[in-house]
Amino acid sequence: MLEKELISKINGKTKPLGALGKLEELAFQVGKIQQTLSPKITEPTIVVFAGDHGIAKLGVSEYPQEVTHQMVLNFCNGGAAINVFCRQHNIHFKIVDAGVNFTFDRQLPIVHHKINFGTKNILIEPAMTRSELALALKKGEEVVDKVVHPDCNCIGFGEMGIGNTSSSALIMSGICNLPLDECVGLGTSLNEFHTLKKTEVLALAQQQHGTISDPLLLLQTYGGFEMAQMCGAMLAAYRKNSLIIVEGFIATAVFLVAQKMESNLINNSVFAHISDEKGHALMLEYLGVTPLLNLDMCLGEGTACAIAFPLIQSAVNFLNEMASFEEANVLKK
Amino acid sequence: MLEKELISKINGKTKPLGALGKLEELAFQVGKIQQTLSPKITEPTIVVFAGDHGIAKLGVSEYPQEVTHQMVLNFCNGGAAINVFCRQHNIHFKIVDAGVNFTFDRQLPIVHHKINFGTKNILIEPAMTRSELALALKKGEEVVDKVVHPDCNCIGFGEMGIGNTSSSALIMSGICNLPLDECVGLGTSLNEFHTLKKTEVLALAQQQHGTISDPLLLLQTYGGFEMAQMCGAMLAAYRKNSLIIVEGFIATAVFLVAQKMESNLINNSVFAHISDEKGHALMLEYLGVTPLLNLDMCLGEGTACAIAFPLIQSAVNFLNEMASFEEANVLKK
Repeated sequence: MLEKELISKINGKTKPLGALGKLEELAFQVGKIQQTLSPKITEPTIVVFAGDHGIAKLGVSEYPQEVTHQMVLNFCNGGAAINVFCRQHNIHFKIVDAGVNFTFDRQLPIVHHKINFGTKNILIEPAMTRSELALALKKGEEVVDKVVHPDCNCIGFGEMGIGNTSSSALIMSGICNLPLDECVGLGTSLNEFHTLKKTEVLALAQQQHGTISDPLLLLQTYGGFEMAQMCGAMLAAYRKNSLIIVEGFIATAVFLVAQKMESNLINNSVFAHISDEKGHALMLEYLGVTPLLNLDMCLGEGTACAIAFPLIQSAVNFLNEMASFEEANVLKK
Repeated sequence: MLEKELISKINGKTKPLGALGKLEELAFQVGKIQQTLSPKITEPTIVVFAGDHGIAKLGVSEYPQEVTHQMVLNFCNGGAAINVFCRQHNIHFKIVDAGVNFTFDRQLPIVHHKINFGTKNILIEPAMTRSELALALKKGEEVVDKVVHPDCNCIGFGEMGIGNTSSSALIMSGICNLPLDECVGLGTSLNEFHTLKKTEVLALAQQQHGTISDPLLLLQTYGGFEMAQMCGAMLAAYRKNSLIIVEGFIATAVFLVAQKMESNLINNSVFAHISDEKGHALMLEYLGVTPLLNLDMCLGEGTACAIAFPLIQSAVNFLNEMASFEEANVLKK
């Protein structure tokens, strides 16, 4: 019933049928989620989860592990790209220490949810224990249920963690059942030669742990604490009936896991941007979704969520504010 | 010199090299236009030019000509999509009566630049006379030089005119030297059958006037007053060194003409969106440019300019506000 009324409201606006393209699909989606013809976006928020990876010390990234905590401090000081874009669009911003290999001052504006000082070396053992995974999922839920503004109904998730494109490629390979070389990309600024080396290292990890298809076991074996907390947060955001903005390669790897736990998650989700990171296109294909933007970005931190946010707001605004043919006395063909 | 410094400033920000993709290209472009490492967007404005077309009475559109003036009144009342998006992004909005077939109340918030009550029937004679064209170009310049806020340095152009995809297809065919059937699309909601009929009508117009390659003669023969004024406005915006946001099929047809008059125009221009209207992709290819967005929109009115505007603002903001590796004490690889 409501779906028909939504379509009728969208088609009744003073524009040719379908002329607002993807904005019309977004308006329909948000109206359907909120079960209203007049949806509203309230207290939009971007949460960035940060964590370190044992694998970062094996040459899979061009950046040293220290960059994770240095960037967290940059987030606290408002100097990172995500800070700039959240300020621009009046989006609340939260940074979560999910498992950074650094002791932060408790006074800093950080959500202190550290599970451990980085994950283990996945060439030897699983990235985290089962109880660490369980705790990380729970702490991620808590971010949505207790830390974020109670009236927030639109939430985007970003991440910071040197090494986490490696984790994401391994999780993707397991869930999408694709060979590693289709899943491994440049990450942050590696060249083709280094990517080959990265693929070799990750293949060793796969040999160590054998074939895994269980999504949570993949997350435990290869994931990061920032990814596990993001997974819990996505599921909590779904239970709260929020609109969820999914960013790039790493967030979509997390989404692959979360979607296996809650198959309706996709109904509440908007995919912000297709990343330059190679495997992302295949993940999106696996999910059967088309992202809103293609701006050759590959930064993470939730930046693509922030950049896509005004499109969501535009969709809601045209649905609420545009005149209908009748209201404006415009002839309908 | 400045170009090198701009690149150095962009690359020094706390992000992997190139990770902000097209936003980095935009930041470079705006910095170069304004000749500064700290560009600013001031008093952004969207101007919509409206005009009627003699050809609208020949069945090339599914909407009757009356819709042009009805939509102008809708713009005045704030009920159209462009009003919604300009409000959202704090963009000034101006609507110009360039040649609508209707007498508007002088008290309405319209820039009264009417050249005539619509153009002539192009199956019989040129759309406008040479002196009408000259006046329209001059009136378009005046909009930028006298009507728009003097501090405006970023301007997008939209249009409203039932029948103007036909004009645009004919101008495109002449300038890009392409057969009509590659230039004619659905316009607003025509189906494939009607598009064939539209192409036949436009072919008759081409037969009537013979081969034309002179851009201004194309504009005079097939264009609308809203298109001619937009052409003058684009050239004036370039002389003012503004950033120019170019929208979809019709605005790009106008750009094709303006670019022939001022070959550097393209340096100051950002292409907002690739329209669903068929010929637009070929126009963009002819110009060698890639637009920012692909949201399946085909509305006109400057809507894609407004939707793309926050991306331009994001580009300028990251250049001005993001910390450098040095400022944030983040290790650079």
